Amino acid sequence: MVTSSAPGKVYLFGEHAVVYGEPAVPCAIGLRAQAAVERRTGGLRVRAGDLSLDGFAVEYNGGTSTPEVDVPENLLDAAMGYVNGAIDQAREAARTRGVAAEERSFEVTVDSNIPLGAGLGSSAAVVVATIDAAARELGVQLPREELADRAYRVEHTVQDGGASRADTFCATMGGAVRIEGDDCETLATPDLPLVVGYDGGAGDTGELVAQVRGLRETHPFVADTVSAVGDLVRRGERALAADDRETLGELMDINHGLLSSLGVSARSLDAMVWAARDGGAHGAKLTGAGGGGCIVALGDPAELERALSYAPACDDAFHAQLDTDGLRREDE
Amino acid sequence: MVTSSAPGKVYLFGEHAVVYGEPAVPCAIGLRAQAAVERRTGGLRVRAGDLSLDGFAVEYNGGTSTPEVDVPENLLDAAMGYVNGAIDQAREAARTRGVAAEERSFEVTVDSNIPLGAGLGSSAAVVVATIDAAARELGVQLPREELADRAYRVEHTVQDGGASRADTFCATMGGAVRIEGDDCETLATPDLPLVVGYDGGAGDTGELVAQVRGLRETHPFVADTVSAVGDLVRRGERALAADDRETLGELMDINHGLLSSLGVSARSLDAMVWAARDGGAHGAKLTGAGGGGCIVALGDPAELERALSYAPACDDAFHAQLDTDGLRREDE
Repeated sequence: MVTSSAPGKVYLFGEHAVVYGEPAVPCAIGLRAQAAVERRTGGLRVRAGDLSLDGFAVEYNGGTSTPEVDVPENLLDAAMGYVNGAIDQAREAARTRGVAAEERSFEVTVDSNIPLGAGLGSSAAVVVATIDAAARELGVQLPREELADRAYRVEHTVQDGGASRADTFCATMGGAVRIEGDDCETLATPDLPLVVGYDGGAGDTGELVAQVRGLRETHPFVADTVSAVGDLVRRGERALAADDRETLGELMDINHGLLSSLGVSARSLDAMVWAARDGGAHGAKLTGAGGGGCIVALGDPAELERALSYAPACDDAFHAQLDTDGLRREDE
Repeated sequence: MVTSSAPGKVYLFGEHAVVYGEPAVPCAIGLRAQAAVERRTGGLRVRAGDLSLDGFAVEYNGGTSTPEVDVPENLLDAAMGYVNGAIDQAREAARTRGVAAEERSFEVTVDSNIPLGAGLGSSAAVVVATIDAAARELGVQLPREELADRAYRVEHTVQDGGASRADTFCATMGGAVRIEGDDCETLATPDLPLVVGYDGGAGDTGELVAQVRGLRETHPFVADTVSAVGDLVRRGERALAADDRETLGELMDINHGLLSSLGVSARSLDAMVWAARDGGAHGAKLTGAGGGGCIVALGDPAELERALSYAPACDDAFHAQLDTDGLRREDE
């Protein structure tokens, strides 16, 4: 059995605009999804005890049987789609290296402390960890670039083409990264004091992306707003390189307003953003697709955790330390 | 004694951006300031029992003596500056028509149900009503265009050049109006169901305008955001002409997000905006300079008043009916 893990992420800047070719800067944080993979005979078996899905363990073969578990079907489909896709990618990676892998099946045990669907990149972390562990179980050590690319292909398929490379590249490489279209690079990153506030809910990424697309097609000035986010991200990269926290915070606040104008904020997200600002944050913004889920704030972690814990909208608040490892091979 | 009154206003679209030459659409609402003017001997006496200043009555001569009343000095200076400036404009209007007015003094009694400094155009309404009543007390009936222009000059002086023509033109003409630089026109306006939520506070207009200016000078993409507001306003004019409430609401929501990105929203304003949206509003936005004060929402008045009354941030909520009169000569 081999075990790999990969981190979740927050967006410092640029979610949604990244869909239209603007740059974005996600940053890996100290929450992880871990995949333990073991060969077995019979069909693929997935155990996912901690995917915030009340726990489920399913066994199925080639994706044709529907597992009977008490979770919303779309969440289950998505979770199974990710693991299934990850196993396929591992098999393909083995095959291209001359390893006969088609007949091999696996038991995959997923453990994650990244809330699902909260914009923290849980699916990307699961996919990256699963591909890497399954490939290693087949005797193949994937280079990180290939791993990130294969993980992206899985997300791309499951998310019907709506995925960006941001989550999977960030989960693989760790630290802050820069995504612009298909170009991905790692950024030198100071250890920023980031705090995440989580409302306990989740937005529907596909729906929110479609909603922004509709708004952008209806109103030309919304496209200008999306471009403005791109310019903001470019300014943010310089502030990040300089560890200029005042400017980073100012830009996070502006980015949140621009996301609000795109219709992807929520009452709970705005309430948490204000709680963080009133608690002394340099700045705060929603992170991810929005509609519910998480905000990220820059500032003193203890103070911001306290400020957020007083906000009724906030279900959980935690110091999100920078993760610089990305993919980790836990058994090496 | 003659008595004139003029309405307050909300911004349907375009506050702040109007400072940079973009169009804006304010709309007069059914709250009024009334000025009763009577000649007297001695210095100017102003009674302002209901300016939300805990009531004050002062008597002074040529602005050289400081009245002793228990209100914040800057508010008092501003209030006295507006009335003083309005009287000067009335005298000048009389003089240009050959009426010797310099030696005439007045008692001015101001009554207003427009909250001060809440972004509802209270000062403009007071100035418009006072100029008109004082001019009539001197025997001069001012055309509306001249009245609006003279009122603008008063605001321009008191607000150190930061005023736009929006408030004074809207208070004079009533209905919805369109302001772009020095160009002002009235718009045919459907009787939109508007509700105002008031947090009981007030932002500092001068400070907020300066803050946006600073942000705009620091970041080029903020200037793009200001231009996006201009495009939004042009789209809003078409929606207004068509009485297309869905689009008007959508644009109000976007405008609020863009204002948030300019840093002029507030926790209370966002909370009221969400209360209105959750209460079924087509859309909602802050109105005026922001930082505190009022929001305006489009939708069923009874439902929105109820929804806002449940919001802890909301001090008062009321149906803001369209005012189509503008200046009213109460004794005619």
